[in-house]
Amino acid sequence: MKDVQNQYDYRNVYLHRVGVKGVKYPIVVLDKRNGTQSTIASVNMYVDLPRDYRGTHMSRFIEVLNEFHLEVHPKRIKEILERLKSVLNASRGVIEVDFPYFISKKAPVTGIESYLEYQCAFNAEMYESIFKFEVSVTTPIHILCPCSKEISERSAHNQRALCKVTFHSHEMVWIEDIISIVESSASAPIYTLLKRPDEKFITELAYDNPRFVEDVARDVALKLRNYGKINWYKIEVESFESIHLHNAYTCVLSDEVL
Amino acid sequence: MKDVQNQYDYRNVYLHRVGVKGVKYPIVVLDKRNGTQSTIASVNMYVDLPRDYRGTHMSRFIEVLNEFHLEVHPKRIKEILERLKSVLNASRGVIEVDFPYFISKKAPVTGIESYLEYQCAFNAEMYESIFKFEVSVTTPIHILCPCSKEISERSAHNQRALCKVTFHSHEMVWIEDIISIVESSASAPIYTLLKRPDEKFITELAYDNPRFVEDVARDVALKLRNYGKINWYKIEVESFESIHLHNAYTCVLSDEVL
Amino acid sequence: MKDVQNQYDYRNVYLHRVGVKGVKYPIVVLDKRNGTQSTIASVNMYVDLPRDYRGTHMSRFIEVLNEFHLEVHPKRIKEILERLKSVLNASRGVIEVDFPYFISKKAPVTGIESYLEYQCAFNAEMYESIFKFEVSVTTPIHILCPCSKEISERSAHNQRALCKVTFHSHEMVWIEDIISIVESSASAPIYTLLKRPDEKFITELAYDNPRFVEDVARDVALKLRNYGKINWYKIEVESFESIHLHNAYTCVLSDEVL
Amino acid sequence: MKDVQNQYDYRNVYLHRVGVKGVKYPIVVLDKRNGTQSTIASVNMYVDLPRDYRGTHMSRFIEVLNEFHLEVHPKRIKEILERLKSVLNASRGVIEVDFPYFISKKAPVTGIESYLEYQCAFNAEMYESIFKFEVSVTTPIHILCPCSKEISERSAHNQRALCKVTFHSHEMVWIEDIISIVESSASAPIYTLLKRPDEKFITELAYDNPRFVEDVARDVALKLRNYGKINWYKIEVESFESIHLHNAYTCVLSDEVL
Repeated sequence: MKDVQNQYDYRNVYLHRVGVKGVKYPIVVLDKRNGTQSTIASVNMYVDLPRDYRGTHMSRFIEVLNEFHLEVHPKRIKEILERLKSVLNASRGVIEVDFPYFISKKAPVTGIESYLEYQCAFNAEMYESIFKFEVSVTTPIHILCPCSKEISERSAHNQRALCKVTFHSHEMVWIEDIISIVESSASAPIYTLLKRPDEKFITELAYDNPRFVEDVARDVALKLRNYGKINWYKIEVESFESIHLHNAYTCVLSDEVL
Repeated sequence: MKDVQNQYDYRNVYLHRVGVKGVKYPIVVLDKRNGTQSTIASVNMYVDLPRDYRGTHMSRFIEVLNEFHLEVHPKRIKEILERLKSVLNASRGVIEVDFPYFISKKAPVTGIESYLEYQCAFNAEMYESIFKFEVSVTTPIHILCPCSKEISERSAHNQRALCKVTFHSHEMVWIEDIISIVESSASAPIYTLLKRPDEKFITELAYDNPRFVEDVARDVALKLRNYGKINWYKIEVESFESIHLHNAYTCVLSDEVL
Repeated sequence: MKDVQNQYDYRNVYLHRVGVKGVKYPIVVLDKRNGTQSTIASVNMYVDLPRDYRGTHMSRFIEVLNEFHLEVHPKRIKEILERLKSVLNASRGVIEVDFPYFISKKAPVTGIESYLEYQCAFNAEMYESIFKFEVSVTTPIHILCPCSKEISERSAHNQRALCKVTFHSHEMVWIEDIISIVESSASAPIYTLLKRPDEKFITELAYDNPRFVEDVARDVALKLRNYGKINWYKIEVESFESIHLHNAYTCVLSDEVL
Repeated sequence: MKDVQNQYDYRNVYLHRVGVKGVKYPIVVLDKRNGTQSTIASVNMYVDLPRDYRGTHMSRFIEVLNEFHLEVHPKRIKEILERLKSVLNASRGVIEVDFPYFISKKAPVTGIESYLEYQCAFNAEMYESIFKFEVSVTTPIHILCPCSKEISERSAHNQRALCKVTFHSHEMVWIEDIISIVESSASAPIYTLLKRPDEKFITELAYDNPRFVEDVARDVALKLRNYGKINWYKIEVESFESIHLHNAYTCVLSDEVL
C-alpha cells in the first residue's frame, strides 16, 4: 500500500508542528494524597516535519499514547516525547494535556468534605535534546473589590475569579502546593459544599481581605518566589465582575519583559 | 441531474424536523429607540418530512432566508415560515434565531453611556395553519445573597447572574420592556461602564436589596402578570455563585405543571 | 443562626425547579464489559419549592450527592431523587448528569484498540411517586452524502456527524447496545486509531453506504423498534457538513407529534 | 471619594497587563467592497502597571473605546493605544479584537450569492513608541485526504477544516486577499448556499485536488511569500477529521524557529 505521506515534497517548507489535536482520552496523573488519580484529558501531540517529506503519520501519535498505558504524568512526559520523536523521525516532539483534577476539601468551620475541580495542564516540548516542561494550574477563588469597599457605606461587590499559574521547574511540584499558594492569596477560597456557619465565615473573611485581581497576582508572585522550586512563572487572574458583563484581567511574568 | 432527495422512501418513518443548523448570518431586528438594529444571528431552519420522501432540499432554506433581505423580526417570521412550508412542500416550518442585542445604557449616577449586550432569541413554528411564536430575552443582573447578609456581621456575597425570560404573546412586546422588568427585580442592574460614584451606588443598592435566584424569578413572574400582554412565560435565573464553582438555578412557568 | 430560606413567602408563586447547576464531580457509572467506569460528570440537581417558602437549601443537594459515594448510575438514580425530596421537603426531585463514557474499540481490519469518547446523560425526575428516567447517548459517526455521490462523476462529500439517542425504558439498556445500533446505521463507524488498511476499509465502506442525516435517523428508528426494550425515543442527527460552515440536522420522535 | 487604585504599592511587582477582557461591543471595520461593515466584537484592552501603583482604572478602558465611536479598524488602532497609554499613564497599551466578518460569495456554477462568516482578529500592542500590529483571518475550507484517495479503490474521506493566518504588515492588507489565498490552496472553498450543479462541481474539484493539512499550510506559505506585503506570518490548519473524533493540525511560521 502506497505511503503518500512519505513522498518527497518539492515545496521546501519546514512545518513546525503537525499532529493530532483534541484527542479525548482517559489518563492517570499523580495525586499528592492518594498516589494516583484517574481523569479525562484533552490531548494534543505534535512533531515537526522536515521540508522534504509530504506528511506525518497521524495514527502513530495514538499508538505512542497507548504504549504508556494512559500514564501521562511528569515522570512519563519526557519518555513520551522521546518515543514520539523516534517513531516519527522528528527533531521536535510536543505534548499538551488538559485535564480536570479533583481535591476533596474540608469546609472552613464545619469541616464537611466535598470535591472541587481544578483545571490543569502539562505542556511539554523536546527539540533535539532540549526539554521544556510547563505545568499550569487554574484555581477558582473568591475576591472582593477594595475600591467598592472603600467608597461604599456598606458591603462591597465580590465575585468568582480564576487564577491560572503556569510555571517551569526542575523539581517535582505538587498541584496541591500551587493551589495552597493561590487560595491563601484570594479574598477567600471556594468550596462546593458550605453550611451556614461556613458561609458566614467566608463572607466575613472576604470582606476583611479585599483584593483586586492585581493584588492576587502580586501576592501569588511573591509567594512563588519564596516557594523556591520555580524557575519561571506566569500568573493570570481573571475575575467575573459581578457589576459588569465583562471580566477584569491581569498577568504578571517572572521575567519582566513580555 | 437526478434528485435523490425526491426518491420514494420505503421505511415509512415520518421525520419531525429536518433542515439546517448553526447558520451564521447578518440580520436586521427591530429596535424600540432606533427603529432597526443590525446584528449577527445563529439561525436554525427546519421543516418536517413525510414518510414517503427520502430527503429535504437543504439549499432552499438559505434561499428563503435571502429572499427576506436579512429581515428576521417578528413582523417577518410568519411570512418566512409560510414560504419555507411552500417551497419545501412541508406541513411544518420551524425557525430559531439567536442573536445579541445591544442597548446603550446610562450609568445610574454619572449618566455616562455604554453598550450592554442582551442575548435574545426568536423561536417560531407553524404546523399546518397553527402558528406558535416564542421570544426569549436574557438579561445579565447583579444579585446579593439574603442568607449571607442575614448571618454575617458585615457584607454579603454577591455575583453576576443571568435571567432568561421566554414568552408567547399576541401583541408586539419590546425586548426593552422585558429587560426593564428584570433589571428592576434584581439586587442591581449591570452596566459596561461605571465610574466610582456609580460603583458606590450599585454596591449600596444591592446590599439594600438582597435577592435569591428564587426572589428574582418570583418578582419577574408577578410583574409579567401585571404587564398584561404575555400569554405564557418561563423564567429562568442562573447565578454564578461567587463562593462556589457551580451555579444556583431556578425556573418558574406560568402554567403550574412542568 | 437565622434560616432566611425558611421564611414565609407572601408572593404566592410556586417554583418548578430550584437547585444547583453545573457541579463538576467524579462519578462511577456501570460498564457492560468492565463492571464499572470512573468518569467526570457535570451534575444539575433540582427540587420544586412550595409557594409559601422563600428559598431552598443549596448545600443539601451536594450532601445527597456525597451520601451515594459518587455512584450515579441507573440503579441509584431513583434512590437519589427520593432522598432529595425527603431532605428538602419537596414534591419534585430532578437530577441531570452529563458525562463522557469511553469504550475501547478494535480497528476494523488491523484490530488495533483505542478509546473513543461517547457523551452520555441521565435525566431523571420524580414528581410525588411518578418516576421518569431518560438516558441519552451521543455517538460520533461518519456519513457520506448520497446526493453528492449520485450527481458527481467521482467521489462524494462526507463528514463527521453526531447521532444523539434519548430514550425511556423500564429495563436495563446498556449504552453499548445503543452505540451498536447507531454505528451500524451510519456510512461508517468512527475510531481514534486507524492504520492504512483500516482507513481504506472505512473509505470504501462509506462510499458503498451513502447516508443522509435523514437515512441515519430512520434506520436507527427502525432498529430501536426491533430492539424492543425502548418505550419512547427521540433520535437527533447533526452533520458537520464538509462543504458548508453550517450543519445539517434531523429529529424523529417515537410518538409522531412534536 | 478615595482613589484606592492610586495607593502606593509596597510589594514592588510590575504587572505586564491589567485591564478588561471579553467586552462585547458593536464595532465598525473596513470592507474592501462596501467601504465599512458593522459587526460585533469581543474586545480585550490592557495596559501595564508600574510596581508602585496598586491598581488600574477599569472604567477608562471603556471610555476610550467610546471616544472612537466604535471604529476599531487598522487606521484607528494605533490612536486607540496611544490614547489608552495617555489616559492610564502606562508604558504599554494592548488591544485584542475578535469579530466575525461576512462576505457575500457566488456559488461556483449557478452564481447564486450567500453570506459566509470568517472569524477575524486585530491584536495590537504598543510599548513606549514600539507598535506591533497583528491581524488574523480564519477561513473555513474543504479538504480531501490524499492518502485515503491513493489507497482506496473508490472515493476518499474529506472534511471541513479551518485555516487561520496571522500576520504582520506595514501596509494595508485586505481580509479578502488573505481569504483568496487560502481558498485557492484548499481542496475546495466552502459556501453557505450550493445548488446541485455547484455541489457536483465542488465534489469533483475536491477529489481532483486532495490536500493534507500539511499541503494547505505549505501552499498558503508559498503564496504569502509571493504576495509580498507580509513581514511575518503564522499559518495554522485544523481539520475536523471525518473518520475520527479528533482533529488533525499543523502550524508553520515564517521564521523557522518556534
